[in-house]
Amino acid sequence: MSRAYEKVALIGLGLIASSMFWAMKRGALAGEVRGYARSGETRDVAREIGLCDVICDSAAEAVKDADLVVLCVPVGAMGAVAQEIAPHLKAGATVSDVGSVKKAVIDAVGPYLPENVHFIPAHPLAGTEHSGPRSGFATLFDNRYTLLVPAEGTAPEAVQKLRDLWEGIGAKVEEMDAEHHDLVLGVTSHAPHLIAYTMVGVADDLRRVTDSEVIKYSAAGFRDFTRIAASDPTMWRDVFLNNKEATLEILGRFTEELFALQRAIRTGDGDMLHAYFTRTRAIRRGIIEAGQDTDAPDFGRVNKT
Amino acid sequence: MSRAYEKVALIGLGLIASSMFWAMKRGALAGEVRGYARSGETRDVAREIGLCDVICDSAAEAVKDADLVVLCVPVGAMGAVAQEIAPHLKAGATVSDVGSVKKAVIDAVGPYLPENVHFIPAHPLAGTEHSGPRSGFATLFDNRYTLLVPAEGTAPEAVQKLRDLWEGIGAKVEEMDAEHHDLVLGVTSHAPHLIAYTMVGVADDLRRVTDSEVIKYSAAGFRDFTRIAASDPTMWRDVFLNNKEATLEILGRFTEELFALQRAIRTGDGDMLHAYFTRTRAIRRGIIEAGQDTDAPDFGRVNKT
Repeated sequence: MSRAYEKVALIGLGLIASSMFWAMKRGALAGEVRGYARSGETRDVAREIGLCDVICDSAAEAVKDADLVVLCVPVGAMGAVAQEIAPHLKAGATVSDVGSVKKAVIDAVGPYLPENVHFIPAHPLAGTEHSGPRSGFATLFDNRYTLLVPAEGTAPEAVQKLRDLWEGIGAKVEEMDAEHHDLVLGVTSHAPHLIAYTMVGVADDLRRVTDSEVIKYSAAGFRDFTRIAASDPTMWRDVFLNNKEATLEILGRFTEELFALQRAIRTGDGDMLHAYFTRTRAIRRGIIEAGQDTDAPDFGRVNKT
Repeated sequence: MSRAYEKVALIGLGLIASSMFWAMKRGALAGEVRGYARSGETRDVAREIGLCDVICDSAAEAVKDADLVVLCVPVGAMGAVAQEIAPHLKAGATVSDVGSVKKAVIDAVGPYLPENVHFIPAHPLAGTEHSGPRSGFATLFDNRYTLLVPAEGTAPEAVQKLRDLWEGIGAKVEEMDAEHHDLVLGVTSHAPHLIAYTMVGVADDLRRVTDSEVIKYSAAGFRDFTRIAASDPTMWRDVFLNNKEATLEILGRFTEELFALQRAIRTGDGDMLHAYFTRTRAIRRGIIEAGQDTDAPDFGRVNKT
């Protein structure tokens, strides 16, 4: 694969940016990758572990001359970063991001960008519960989807180049409009995360069961929830505040459904429960057949002894 | 380790029974293990794969002469099985089970058992989303907890023998009373399962997002829920119907908490969300330090390409 871009700038150096860097290195997809993070400590770590070809001490310096600028900061910080870099962008450059919500990012970033750059929001659907510059790895995006959300009228060749980059990184790429993206991700990501946070919070808070019991006996199902509920708090705060509408809609449906199941438990309606639990098995089968999860028991977890 | 029991009978041949058998073989913990399952197909599979030393065509035949009988059937079937085997139990034998709820099992099984056997309910906190006689493996219980729930006045030497067996199988063993067991498991297992089933049901049901989208984009968090929601429907129906009180209590607390978080999203209370999400990270850390889960990103899932 030929280089999609000669010069790339990554603004923010957490899990996603660092994984993008290692994947771009693996595929020799960019000539030079510059990185910037607001925290001096993060920049020091990046320099120490060789994350990015050059670490800059300002966002302006990082984006100067870049053919592609990718904003990899929490959703709530996107607007301020866009304002900061806007005067320094090269004409004809592409600006993208990796935020988990798209409408709010477009509203926050769009107004700051000059006419002569391409703005192509994106969202790689991959991650782990770990965060920070040391958490990235080259295979994170392999076989996962990255969604591009170009505005109408975006130059097709600019979209194609970004698609080429993500495919080179290992992802499957699809396009979607921002509103639908936010609804789909509300279901597949935002609502599940909030529910996991809630369940872990309840367990922590229930006075008649100690935290030590919760921890020791977590293998019965609970520990799956704690992985999700260990994700980066700042990132997730911003996701919920910026995908309010879709998240609340889905949680409303969730509560309705939960009440129906609670009622079946209370009234002893075993047939309803059995039918419900049988139906949900099919979705799991679909995910495994689509190559989006492993069929190994317990995710193939190593049973540490 | 010396043999805990000379003759063991496993009634029901699913994930737990088959894993117990392979673990007992691994540790040479029993002289002979007899198995019985109601379904002729399951018995055929068991014979084919060498599951148990002898497969019997009736529960009565399996338990005759057994020093230990373990009921490994869904919670709702325990009473009927107890009634069936009671006349055939050897004097001095121990009867145990592996059900996920304990009060209901004790109420269902206890009345049928003769005075001259020891009844020691148990619950190994281990499992996977797979079920059936082919799903077992010897390491399932390694480093996981098994809870014993002996009634007051149970002979200590009988409890000790069962403890020895489970420790030989690889588990850590603790004792607990039935009511507390059902509450603890409500938090660490039953409520999380119901919530996962609910979330997967909502996703399947949301008309504006297709199942194909849910499946393709599941790696953003949702797929973790689908693993739990792929667990055996009969087993879980019985769990909820038989741990009604604790499950409903915890779901009540869950809903209360979910509403508080929804309200924070609606009103834009980022500080509340951030503090909440920070607190839940600590629980995850505790689970990893206790050796009850892996710290590898994404449970160390293999990223299949």
